[in-house]
Amino acid sequence: MNPEFKTIGESFIQQYYTMFDSDIMTRASLANFYRNESMLTFEGQQFMGKEAIEGKLKSLTFQKINHAISSVDCQPTFDGGVVVMVVGQLKTDDDPPHQFLQTFVLKGPEFFVQHDLFRLCLGG
Amino acid sequence: MNPEFKTIGESFIQQYYTMFDSDIMTRASLANFYRNESMLTFEGQQFMGKEAIEGKLKSLTFQKINHAISSVDCQPTFDGGVVVMVVGQLKTDDDPPHQFLQTFVLKGPEFFVQHDLFRLCLGG
Repeated sequence: MNPEFKTIGESFIQQYYTMFDSDIMTRASLANFYRNESMLTFEGQQFMGKEAIEGKLKSLTFQKINHAISSVDCQPTFDGGVVVMVVGQLKTDDDPPHQFLQTFVLKGPEFFVQHDLFRLCLGG
Repeated sequence: MNPEFKTIGESFIQQYYTMFDSDIMTRASLANFYRNESMLTFEGQQFMGKEAIEGKLKSLTFQKINHAISSVDCQPTFDGGVVVMVVGQLKTDDDPPHQFLQTFVLKGPEFFVQHDLFRLCLGG
């Protein structure tokens, strides 16, 4: 297990959402965190592979988005990766803010995203 | 990867929360889903090992609890396990209901809980 799991998980989260909340080109480059064996479950829709996930990221239609993180929980995996669970609020364009949650499993030693599960909490 | 990952994840969730919402003895027996290498992060507190996790489960002071599940998302892991992310509402004793979220990583082939991360979403 990687003793730096908490730093790795929190740094990843900071970098991920900073890029997400940047311009559209930077948001599309989030695809570089994914590989061909990566999986994304987005509001119940399943995507597998960097190309499919990049397509989903590019299909998001809002112009502006802002993520505010409430909590980040990290656990080390036995193959040197990190499980990260995030709770936060996101706000797109002129919509009201929504709570969201997202779980990542980062695969070491490069810490690409092996698993990504995302849900909005509507009416929570 | 186990092609039955969705059935395995959903069955686990149903069994887990049914036991959780049962009597105190049954709730304590949830510890049998955990092993010595299992990790629990409960509202930011870290526990490792079946004994520590059982102690945490036994320390929960409410008499009655009810979980209502809103969504269950599952992904297969490459070692035959399942990542499960749950959103729901829970209600303890006479408290108002709270949204919660919980992520499990189940390790195959026995599907014990390798990773468990739990958060209440207060004010969400």
